[in-house]
Amino acid sequence: MTQITETIQELNRKIARGETTREALVTRALEGASHASAKSVFTKLYPEAALAAARYADAAQAAGVEQSALAGLPVSIKDLYGVAGETTMAGSVVCKGEPPQTHDAPVVARLRTSGSAIIGKTNMTEFAFSGIGINPHYGTPVNPTDPKVARIPGGSSSGAGVSVALGLAVAGLGSDTGGSIRIPAALCGLVGFKSTQSRVPLDGALELSRSLDTVCAMTRSVQDCITVDAVLSGQPLVVRPRSVGSLRLAVPQTFVLDGLDATVAQAFDRSLSALSAAGAEIVEIPLAEFAEISKVNAPGGLSPIEAYAVHHERLARAKDAFDPRVAARVSLGSTITAQQYIALLDKRRAWIASVERAIRGFDAVLCPTVPTVAPEIARLVASDEEFFKANGQMLRNTFTINLLDGCSYSLPCHRQGELPVGLMVSSIRDDDANLSSVALAIESILQN
Amino acid sequence: MTQITETIQELNRKIARGETTREALVTRALEGASHASAKSVFTKLYPEAALAAARYADAAQAAGVEQSALAGLPVSIKDLYGVAGETTMAGSVVCKGEPPQTHDAPVVARLRTSGSAIIGKTNMTEFAFSGIGINPHYGTPVNPTDPKVARIPGGSSSGAGVSVALGLAVAGLGSDTGGSIRIPAALCGLVGFKSTQSRVPLDGALELSRSLDTVCAMTRSVQDCITVDAVLSGQPLVVRPRSVGSLRLAVPQTFVLDGLDATVAQAFDRSLSALSAAGAEIVEIPLAEFAEISKVNAPGGLSPIEAYAVHHERLARAKDAFDPRVAARVSLGSTITAQQYIALLDKRRAWIASVERAIRGFDAVLCPTVPTVAPEIARLVASDEEFFKANGQMLRNTFTINLLDGCSYSLPCHRQGELPVGLMVSSIRDDDANLSSVALAIESILQN
Repeated sequence: MTQITETIQELNRKIARGETTREALVTRALEGASHASAKSVFTKLYPEAALAAARYADAAQAAGVEQSALAGLPVSIKDLYGVAGETTMAGSVVCKGEPPQTHDAPVVARLRTSGSAIIGKTNMTEFAFSGIGINPHYGTPVNPTDPKVARIPGGSSSGAGVSVALGLAVAGLGSDTGGSIRIPAALCGLVGFKSTQSRVPLDGALELSRSLDTVCAMTRSVQDCITVDAVLSGQPLVVRPRSVGSLRLAVPQTFVLDGLDATVAQAFDRSLSALSAAGAEIVEIPLAEFAEISKVNAPGGLSPIEAYAVHHERLARAKDAFDPRVAARVSLGSTITAQQYIALLDKRRAWIASVERAIRGFDAVLCPTVPTVAPEIARLVASDEEFFKANGQMLRNTFTINLLDGCSYSLPCHRQGELPVGLMVSSIRDDDANLSSVALAIESILQN
Repeated sequence: MTQITETIQELNRKIARGETTREALVTRALEGASHASAKSVFTKLYPEAALAAARYADAAQAAGVEQSALAGLPVSIKDLYGVAGETTMAGSVVCKGEPPQTHDAPVVARLRTSGSAIIGKTNMTEFAFSGIGINPHYGTPVNPTDPKVARIPGGSSSGAGVSVALGLAVAGLGSDTGGSIRIPAALCGLVGFKSTQSRVPLDGALELSRSLDTVCAMTRSVQDCITVDAVLSGQPLVVRPRSVGSLRLAVPQTFVLDGLDATVAQAFDRSLSALSAAGAEIVEIPLAEFAEISKVNAPGGLSPIEAYAVHHERLARAKDAFDPRVAARVSLGSTITAQQYIALLDKRRAWIASVERAIRGFDAVLCPTVPTVAPEIARLVASDEEFFKANGQMLRNTFTINLLDGCSYSLPCHRQGELPVGLMVSSIRDDDANLSSVALAIESILQN
C-alpha cells in the first residue's frame, strides 16, 4: 500500500492544479501510518498538529499566499531530534524518565517554519548505532520493497526510510554518522543526501559521534533533497545544471567494489555504462588511501569513543536495558585514552588531506552505496555473527565519506522489479552545490 | 641599556622626519642582542636577513613607496614558530635531530610580508608549559626592569618579553595558552594582547594545547598591538574611539583579587580610582563561575591532556632530556581517558556560556594580570614547591580568559620606579575590536 508516489515537485504541481489538497495528503498519510505495513515505523504520531499545518497551508493557498515547497506536506522526523516537551528516546528505553526537551531542535523548528506537516517521530537503531535498522525495543520496520521476504530497511534511520518508501512522508529527516541516511535510501529505493556535516546545526539531536554526525534527509529525488536541504540548512544551494557529457567521474578500485552481490554488481556496471554512453568520462583510480581507514580509525574508532562519552552514565546505570549489540559497540570506547583519541583526530585530518589530493579534478567519486541488497531480518536477528558481518558490509562504503567529512548522494540505480540498489555519488567537504548538480545529471540518466 | 623606547607609531614618525633609519634601528638592536643584559633572550639571530629587510624598507621609502607600519622594524619571534629549513626547538633539547620545517609558519610569513626585520628567535619555557620563564637548557632571560635583583621575566614567552623590554624589538611574537603573552607583558612593563584564539592560524606553531593556544604578541602600546594583530590575523580590527566616561567595567570578586602583594594591590586600586574619576562606571560582580574552574578543568586540565598527546612519543624516548618540571606537568595527561577529555570539553563549553551571560552588558572585565610583582629567579630555581606555587599564582588570573576563549589585554599600571604591574582588561570571544577600543581608552588614563 503506497500512499504518495510523487516527488515534492510533482505534488505541488498537482496541488496547484487542484487535483489534491494538503489536507487530503496528510489525512491519507496518517491513515497509512496505522496500517500493518507501517508497523514499527513511527514511535509517535502528531495527527492534530500535522492536520492543522496542512489545513493552514490549504487556506493560505486559497488566499493567494505564496507557499514554501514543503508547506502542508507530510514529513517524518527521526526520534533523535528534540521536540519541546518530549523526552528524546532515540530508539532506546534507557532514556525513559530523562527530562523532556525544553525546545524543538533547530532543524525541527526549521521544518515547522517551512510549514511542513510533521506527521510523526520515526523509529531507528538504538542511539543510531548500526547500519542495519533492527530495534529490539520498538520492533524493526520492514523494508516495503520486497512483498515476499521481510528484509531490513537499513539503518540507523530505518523508520525514516520506510516512512518515505511507503509514501507516508515526502521527506524523512534522519541523520548520517556512518551511512545512516544513505543505507536506508539505497535499500528502500530512495534518494539520500548526506550533506557536509557543518551545513546543518547538530543542536537538539541526541549525539552519537560529534565528529561525524550529520543532520540530513531522504526523499524521492535529488531535487527534493535539495529542497529539503535548503530548509534544514537555511542556506539554499546554488545548483547549476550540468550535462552528463561534461562529467569526469572517478571509480575507486580499493575495497569499495569487493564482495558485491550479483544484483548490485550488475546495477553498478549498468550505471557506469549508461553514464559512459551519455558522454561522461569514467576513470578508475586506485584511491589506496581507503586501505588505511582501519589504521586511521584505530584503536576503537571515532564513533565508539565519542558514543561512550555520551552514554557512559547510561551504560553504568542500565547496561541491561540497552540493545546488547549497541552496548557492545559503545563499550569499545571505554578503554581509549585522551592521547589515543587526539591522535585519531590528527590521523583523520591528514587522511582527509591525502584523499582530497587524490580525487582532485574529478566531479565526483562513484561506488555502490552498499555491496548487497537488503539482507533478511530473521537471519540477522538470529545471529550476532551474521549481524556484525552484515553491519560491517552495510557501513563499509558509506563510512569512507563520513571519515572524509565529505558530501554524498545515494541514488536508486536498480531496474523495476529488482531489489533496490544505490549508486553512491560523493565529493569533498563543502562541495555540496557542485555535487548536487552532478547528482541531478546522473539521476537523469539512471531514470532513462 | 635600552635600545628602543619608542612605539611603532613614534618610530615611524621619526623615520619619516629623517631622524633615524630602519637600518640604524636594526643595527642597534642586533648589537644590543649580543650585550650581556640580553643573555639567554635569543636562541638564534638573523642579522643578514634583518638588515636586508631594513635596508630594503629604507630604499623603498627613498623611492616614495608607501610602507607598512612594521616595514624594516626589528621584531622577534618565539622559538615556537616554524622557520623554513630549521627545526623548531621550542625551548627544548629533545627536538634536536627532528626534521626541519619545510615552510615558514603562516604568522612568520605574514611578518615577512609586512616587511618586518625578524632579528631572531626568542627563548621560552620548554614547550611553552609554564608562566614563569625559567629554562634549564638555554638559560633564563633576566627581567630588565629591576637593576638590582634577577627576577623572572614571566613565561612562557620569556625571551619575547625581554626582547621588547630591552628595546631590541618593537614587537615580540609569542603565544598565550594560559597567560604566556600577558604574564611577561605584566612583569616586564609591556602591553600584551591575547586575541581570540580563532583570529590567527595556529599552523606551523609547536602545539601545547590545541583548545587554548593563541598566536599573539607583546608591544609597547595598545595601538602597536592593534597594528601587529592586523599583520598576524590578516583582518585589521575596526577600532572606534571610546571615551573613558562611556565605559562600564566589571571587577570580579571571586579569587582574582586574592593574595595580591602591596605593589599590585595599590596599582590596581589606583587604576580603578583613576578610571572612576574619569567617569567610568566600575561595578563589582561576584562572577562565582570562576570558583568552578578547577571542577571544569578536572581531571588533569586541558593543557596537560593535549600536551601529552603532542609529546608522549618524546616523553617515551627522552624523558630525562625534558625540564623535569615540564615533564611532570605533561605527564599528568597520560592517564586521562577519551571520555574524560570529551566531558571536559563539554563542561568548558557550558562554563563559557554561563560566564558570557554573567558579564553581558559590561564593556570589559578588570583584574590584576598577575597577583604579585616578578619573583626572584634564584628562589624558584631552588625549590620545586616555590616554583609550582609561583606558577599557579602567575597563571591564575590569566587562565580564566583562556578557558573563556576570550580576548584580553595586559596594560602597565605601575608608577615610574615601581616594579611593573599589569592591569588585565578582558572580554568574550570575538569581541577583539570593542576590547581594543576599551583598552585604548583605559591606557590613556593610566598614562596620565
